[in-house]
Amino acid sequence: MKYCSDCGAPVGLRIPQGDNRERHVCDLCGTIHYQNPKVVVGCIPEWEDKILLCRRAIQPRHGLWTLPAGFMERGETTREGAARETLEEANARVEIGALYSLFNLPHIDQVYMLFRARLLDLDFSPGEESLEVRLFAESEIPWDVLAFQTIRETLDLYFKDRRRGRQGAMYSGDIIRALDGEQPRVHVTIHEDQA
Amino acid sequence: MKYCSDCGAPVGLRIPQGDNRERHVCDLCGTIHYQNPKVVVGCIPEWEDKILLCRRAIQPRHGLWTLPAGFMERGETTREGAARETLEEANARVEIGALYSLFNLPHIDQVYMLFRARLLDLDFSPGEESLEVRLFAESEIPWDVLAFQTIRETLDLYFKDRRRGRQGAMYSGDIIRALDGEQPRVHVTIHEDQA
Ligand SMILES: [Zn+2]
Ligand SMILES: [Zn+2]
Repeated sequence: MKYCSDCGAPVGLRIPQGDNRERHVCDLCGTIHYQNPKVVVGCIPEWEDKILLCRRAIQPRHGLWTLPAGFMERGETTREGAARETLEEANARVEIGALYSLFNLPHIDQVYMLFRARLLDLDFSPGEESLEVRLFAESEIPWDVLAFQTIRETLDLYFKDRRRGRQGAMYSGDIIRALDGEQPRVHVTIHEDQA
Repeated sequence: MKYCSDCGAPVGLRIPQGDNRERHVCDLCGTIHYQNPKVVVGCIPEWEDKILLCRRAIQPRHGLWTLPAGFMERGETTREGAARETLEEANARVEIGALYSLFNLPHIDQVYMLFRARLLDLDFSPGEESLEVRLFAESEIPWDVLAFQTIRETLDLYFKDRRRGRQGAMYSGDIIRALDGEQPRVHVTIHEDQA
């Protein structure tokens, strides 16, 4: 951010009064421009023992497989966003269920929320952002060509739960990328589910 | 948003190619400026049978009581944000536990996430944004002067759970404000916890 989105004057980095971190502050009108993490919402669309994945037609990770997910928009709820992304990327209608995984990615300022979902019919097809959309049994999951670590962790938890017959779990975790450029170090915290 | 934060030129509302909703797009450099919901993180600090509340020294809802919570910042996780807000507003140290409630407020583009937390000591005091900080037993909760609907709903669920001896629950809900200016219509969805 170099210019004020309210008046067009240059902004500078300063710590506003009563605050404790640097913000972009307008030199002319004084507006403080806050920047905050973004929420990514998506789901695990289930049909019998299979789940729906999309192969990405866009960057980043063009050509790799992912669960339908994308940035939450203004004016919608997290569940509405997850359903909208599934419709856009896979032309698929789902009933969104419980929150399944929540991942923090502080190095890119994203919070991922993935819900369980029931695919309502088999009339799906690639949306504009997908090359291909299909159902996968556990044995068919393309683990080596998944697009994102959040998706890999979520599917790993999901199929482990299914093998154990565990239902109703919810996981939250942090994906912390090491500053030295190594492989990301992943810390998965399991939500204590004592019901 | 009236001006491009990258180059200072005016922006217009247009639907970018491949998109399906209006965005602020720069007339000069072409940058698309996305606007997304913000995450509010906070916690329910527990000490024996009491919880910690803060009385707000700032607008909105000056003088009313709330759980420690505030906007998630860049570079932190949701749990780190919840602990930071508790330190800032109540000078209190907590160990953040499981996610307890998640509320969507689409009319103001916020997603609230409140965690259970263990207060680590009794050395708390009002931060700059608080007039007063104290522990409340259930019978002392100031229901009539709570600052936000999200806090009221969360505390209501929390004490109901405690009375029933229910642990490990997690709730997600939407607080939908009616367009006609009536009282907000609240829809609370209970996360199906079948573990
Ligand atoms: Zn300005
Ligand atoms: Zn521009």
